[in-house]
Amino acid sequence: MKVLIPFDGRNPKTRLSNTLTLEERREFSNAMLRDVLDAIPSESLDVEVVTTEPFDLELPVETTKSSEPLTSVVNEYIDSTVPIAIVMADLPLLQTEQIDRLLEPSADVVLAPGVGGGTNALVVRDDSFSVDYHGVSVRDHQRIARNRGLSTTKIDSFRLALDVDEPADLVEVLLHSSGSASDWLESNGFVIAKPGGRPTVARKTD
Amino acid sequence: MKVLIPFDGRNPKTRLSNTLTLEERREFSNAMLRDVLDAIPSESLDVEVVTTEPFDLELPVETTKSSEPLTSVVNEYIDSTVPIAIVMADLPLLQTEQIDRLLEPSADVVLAPGVGGGTNALVVRDDSFSVDYHGVSVRDHQRIARNRGLSTTKIDSFRLALDVDEPADLVEVLLHSSGSASDWLESNGFVIAKPGGRPTVARKTD
Repeated sequence: MKVLIPFDGRNPKTRLSNTLTLEERREFSNAMLRDVLDAIPSESLDVEVVTTEPFDLELPVETTKSSEPLTSVVNEYIDSTVPIAIVMADLPLLQTEQIDRLLEPSADVVLAPGVGGGTNALVVRDDSFSVDYHGVSVRDHQRIARNRGLSTTKIDSFRLALDVDEPADLVEVLLHSSGSASDWLESNGFVIAKPGGRPTVARKTD
Repeated sequence: MKVLIPFDGRNPKTRLSNTLTLEERREFSNAMLRDVLDAIPSESLDVEVVTTEPFDLELPVETTKSSEPLTSVVNEYIDSTVPIAIVMADLPLLQTEQIDRLLEPSADVVLAPGVGGGTNALVVRDDSFSVDYHGVSVRDHQRIARNRGLSTTKIDSFRLALDVDEPADLVEVLLHSSGSASDWLESNGFVIAKPGGRPTVARKTD
């Protein structure tokens, strides 16, 4: 099956701007992408990264550049290639087990909700489906599928739900991953802080 | 197996104080507890709620009152009753499927991490284990188990990970539940709002 990974290498993770510089956000996003690629078995799946341009990272999988918005890019792929899985690039807790769980159900549309109502991964088996990543997309995707008479199912996984958007999300990376993104955070001085309330990260300065 | 559900009926969910009054936080907490009880098959499991006093809710399961702190209460139960499952009362996305997944592994200690590093549910099969709910407890619980030579495993479930602490967590209840807590929010005017960034809830005033 084709597995498409959309990736923004230009100005990624703007909601981390108070925590990381642009250059650091790029490095950290590249590390998360490596974690996602490490989780997807490329022997059995046809993995393709579609990136914003310019893009100069060397990747071990097919890489396509596009200047189209995310929703348009993904809908073009769905029109030409089903079944297809679309997996976001900012899921640093992902492991092969979650990819297996994502590909297991036979529903027309398999959704992996993100924290906050995004769609972190989906499998589309019918080209009458289309995505719309604006707004609370997991709700919209269920509605779109229902309107077109397509069956849906949702995957219950925290590792799939955790896309990194905000500083508090970095806590989960430090807690539950030992991959590239976690290594990057540790190398750059991040530790878990618990000031009372939900934990966040702090940065050690030497 | 004994399933213990610790419940704070006095001053629950203080981090929702800007969103809900004390009376509303109590009502909403009761609704979440009903959802948790609905998810746990009481025919096959020995369910017990241990509550702060005073407590005047009528529950369909054994109810015990205690004025001890959470950690002490749970450790007393572990000392006298293993195997035991401890499930938090503020998990409104919980369904029977997640209880099945929690009870399936045979590890000495099975952990269900919460968003932010809490321990939303655990199964303890060896009474040399003890809990410590202060701090980033899922990390501490793994360390405690390791120090005592006990095997551990983690359950990867967003429905188990989502304990309601902050207003943004209410979004997940509206999106992914049709139980008592979700009903309560809808009856009290809550809708999903997306001001840009991660969605939150807004309250309609008539």
